[in-house]
Amino acid sequence: MTETPHPLYAAHAETLNRALHAISERGYWSAYPESPSPRVYGETAAADGEAAFQAYLGADFPLDQPGTADRVATEASPFGVDLAVRYPHAGPDELIAAATAALPAWRDAGPQARVGVCLEILDRLHKHVFELANAVQFTSGQAFVMAFQAGGTHALDRALEAVAYAYSEMTRHPGTADWEKPAGKGDPLRMVKTYHVVPRGVSLVIGCNTFPTWNSYPGLFASLATGNPVIVKPHPLAVLPLAITVRYAREVLAEAGFDPNLVLLAAEAPDEKLASTLATDPAVKIVDFTGSTAYGDWLEANARQAAVYTEKAGLNTVIIDSTDDFAGLCRNLGFTLTLYSGQMCTTSQNILVPAAGIETDQGHKSLDEVAQGIAAAVGKLTGDPARGVELTGAIVNEGVLRRLDEVAGVGEAVLPSRTVEHPKFPKAVVRTPTIVKLGADAGQTYDREWFGPISFVIGTDSTEHSLEIFRDTVGRQGALTASVYSTDPAVLDAAEKAAVDVGVHLSCNLTGGVFVNQSAAFSDFHASGANPAANAALTDGAYVANRFRIVQSRRHA
Amino acid sequence: MTETPHPLYAAHAETLNRALHAISERGYWSAYPESPSPRVYGETAAADGEAAFQAYLGADFPLDQPGTADRVATEASPFGVDLAVRYPHAGPDELIAAATAALPAWRDAGPQARVGVCLEILDRLHKHVFELANAVQFTSGQAFVMAFQAGGTHALDRALEAVAYAYSEMTRHPGTADWEKPAGKGDPLRMVKTYHVVPRGVSLVIGCNTFPTWNSYPGLFASLATGNPVIVKPHPLAVLPLAITVRYAREVLAEAGFDPNLVLLAAEAPDEKLASTLATDPAVKIVDFTGSTAYGDWLEANARQAAVYTEKAGLNTVIIDSTDDFAGLCRNLGFTLTLYSGQMCTTSQNILVPAAGIETDQGHKSLDEVAQGIAAAVGKLTGDPARGVELTGAIVNEGVLRRLDEVAGVGEAVLPSRTVEHPKFPKAVVRTPTIVKLGADAGQTYDREWFGPISFVIGTDSTEHSLEIFRDTVGRQGALTASVYSTDPAVLDAAEKAAVDVGVHLSCNLTGGVFVNQSAAFSDFHASGANPAANAALTDGAYVANRFRIVQSRRHA
Repeated sequence: MTETPHPLYAAHAETLNRALHAISERGYWSAYPESPSPRVYGETAAADGEAAFQAYLGADFPLDQPGTADRVATEASPFGVDLAVRYPHAGPDELIAAATAALPAWRDAGPQARVGVCLEILDRLHKHVFELANAVQFTSGQAFVMAFQAGGTHALDRALEAVAYAYSEMTRHPGTADWEKPAGKGDPLRMVKTYHVVPRGVSLVIGCNTFPTWNSYPGLFASLATGNPVIVKPHPLAVLPLAITVRYAREVLAEAGFDPNLVLLAAEAPDEKLASTLATDPAVKIVDFTGSTAYGDWLEANARQAAVYTEKAGLNTVIIDSTDDFAGLCRNLGFTLTLYSGQMCTTSQNILVPAAGIETDQGHKSLDEVAQGIAAAVGKLTGDPARGVELTGAIVNEGVLRRLDEVAGVGEAVLPSRTVEHPKFPKAVVRTPTIVKLGADAGQTYDREWFGPISFVIGTDSTEHSLEIFRDTVGRQGALTASVYSTDPAVLDAAEKAAVDVGVHLSCNLTGGVFVNQSAAFSDFHASGANPAANAALTDGAYVANRFRIVQSRRHA
Repeated sequence: MTETPHPLYAAHAETLNRALHAISERGYWSAYPESPSPRVYGETAAADGEAAFQAYLGADFPLDQPGTADRVATEASPFGVDLAVRYPHAGPDELIAAATAALPAWRDAGPQARVGVCLEILDRLHKHVFELANAVQFTSGQAFVMAFQAGGTHALDRALEAVAYAYSEMTRHPGTADWEKPAGKGDPLRMVKTYHVVPRGVSLVIGCNTFPTWNSYPGLFASLATGNPVIVKPHPLAVLPLAITVRYAREVLAEAGFDPNLVLLAAEAPDEKLASTLATDPAVKIVDFTGSTAYGDWLEANARQAAVYTEKAGLNTVIIDSTDDFAGLCRNLGFTLTLYSGQMCTTSQNILVPAAGIETDQGHKSLDEVAQGIAAAVGKLTGDPARGVELTGAIVNEGVLRRLDEVAGVGEAVLPSRTVEHPKFPKAVVRTPTIVKLGADAGQTYDREWFGPISFVIGTDSTEHSLEIFRDTVGRQGALTASVYSTDPAVLDAAEKAAVDVGVHLSCNLTGGVFVNQSAAFSDFHASGANPAANAALTDGAYVANRFRIVQSRRHA
């Protein structure tokens, strides 16, 4: 620990302290206002951000790092906008060499300086949050407000949360200690001990298509704060949000006198398999990944020299037993299924309902009535294309469209998916959610993830049977979210017990403005690390503690 | 968290608080007095403990757990004492079934109750510390005082340290939180959130021959405190210390109303490969291991379903540049090489000295004079057999004898190993340390671990060359300890920089009563997890944080 705080640490100490308080209390807190309103961000912020985004299109992305001699452009916008941004194209060896060379001075700067620089990077990104939001929107297919929140302010909150955990963990031990052991009649033994926080090595963050910033920031900033240079390997279809992130991170690093190669962009050409090459390099000691189960499992099996943190697929499940607010249930679930066309790792897929129907404040509802109620809520949100697309956004990639085609041949569509013409972006690929009714015996269909606007209402023998299916399917396949609706405390308790047993976070009776697919930084843990859908949580002690080690020296006082 | 503290938590809250303070300050502290003096432990404690130990010999070990229908006896004492203790011999399936069944109630008891029970177990073991010390002595070959300390009180301190970290980590988040998010003009969104601390699953601790308790307790108690049932698989030659541990742990668990199968002994028949079977069982989610690099690497590669914590072999290195206390240097190093015949994972092996000699308070000393000075110190400690064996103890197993034979054909023996007749135990296998002089070009010899009373004085071109060899060998092979002697602050700094780069703990200028092969609980980290000799440290946040997960539920307030 330096005796005079680093100026960037001093500048952001209050934010850090509030974040440290928040992660220990887990109540509501946010550092970055989630409303894109001009009253919050100023009259010109939105236009300025959009202009900054537009300036990137069809041009060499301004990044002074290895790889600028060659360029790659791989993005295709779900909104049909021509992006054609050309990124530096570095080879794995030059990326790793540059990152490795940057490590010692960053390590030796100590926790306070590193955390100060990280918080300054977040502050810089926040100043460019509209630019970032546009980049997220047009690469992921999220509608603007969601891109601003999930891709901008909420991502920054998650990053700050990770930095706070990292700081807390790095400073749980002092930098030095005096040790004095009594030695009988003689003088005590006296030692002075120094505890160095030492990073693991080069860190690799592998981004995803749908949430390029939100899912990458915790790993990126947890690794950077703990002293590891970070190579950011974006999804080839969602490079821009992370390129912007790398740009401003490097800018701040250079201003603070550090090697900007502490954060590097690893854009790749098609079929280059750069992630696999980097992830198995001996110098890479940490890998963060969000994406498919197949590739996450591959990383865990093959990147053996690294600590690997993965978020993969799962079977997000809703157990409907009864409700005292049927309309609220339908509205709430309808919104969850509609938001970003269900293309969230947290969107519910399997909705388990007794085939004999449920009791509600509106009397008994049959299985079909429950399914139709949810379908009607989705229909209402998507009926008007202009308003609907501000919720659904666009379809992120071909994989989702293929699954929509496939599911059309399965079960009974309570709600078919519709193609919608986007009022502002005529080439946008927009599809509304489909809801398919299945029997409990259709495990061959619902026992795998159908990522996208696809959910199943599954008729079960009883709520007890629903809980059995929940335990079985989520126990084997994992899940990021689970939800239960019941007026019976015993059922809520049984669901909570089942959720604890299979290790998935549970939301109970959501009928208002909180949705199962949304988690709040500083309060909700995202993923649990306790089931096959993810081996880590965003963000807790375990997520940061093994990103550095302590190396000690001792000498007599 | 329960509202009324568990009585065992309340009983030990002060000890826990002192331990929590100690791990955050890292100064000197110990909970269990290390002196076996009757003034501390009472006049009859030593005799009572020895009698309790004797009562186990040649008998069925009193343990009421799965496997009592069959018995195994596999121990052979380094002191030549006939042990013949017969342990329950359970199959892997029945062990895992019993452990799994015990999990839910232990999990649901919560952190305070679990930590209270763990502290009561430590207290119970402390009451039987002489019994434990005898068991460690006669299975590991440690002399009595060392067995009492390293195998008894220091092991208990390390266990308490692990429990304190586990408690700290489990309670860094509250059990419940109120979350209230402003919602514009409307009512705020209000949720109540519950955070369940959920264990990973069954935990397996694989003990070693030399330190059956010290190296097993941190993993055992870290796992147990965080909610995981623990299967204790002792080394076949050092079962008794862990059988005694399991006995008293089960006693306390049962008294506290928990399933005693939360702690199980997995004694095995020769060549049964029980550790491998258990370590790769899908139910086993945590593995702690101390032992060979080959088997540690095998576990890391194959126990893929588990978090694997390993401590393996390394090249503990001393860099001698100069000293202002040559006699102290020789005494200190001589003691380190002699203690437990160098059979510690922390004993120095490679002593790097400039071939041209060093400057000392006694004037220039040639390489040979340095080697002879250390050899003379060893000779003085081992010259009188009766006093010598109280330091060296006995040779733990055949592997050490084989290496002693092998090394006799290598280099120039500055100090040959001698066979000593133990005054009290005529069948004891006692050997004094050997010191072999090598050139820096003899990497084929010194570039691997020679576990046992074997060390090399290696003539280098210069201290700079010594540091290069240190960086190269420890960088590739790892180490648990490193040490430097110099009167030049620049050399100390260079050594510290090298130690940080290769990730090994460094001791500087030890000439008094602190030895490089000893680490103090609550202050010194044992291993760093930052080099190939170990992937974890005893004990830090990373060692405990991933032994449990948090599973959350939320509902509207």
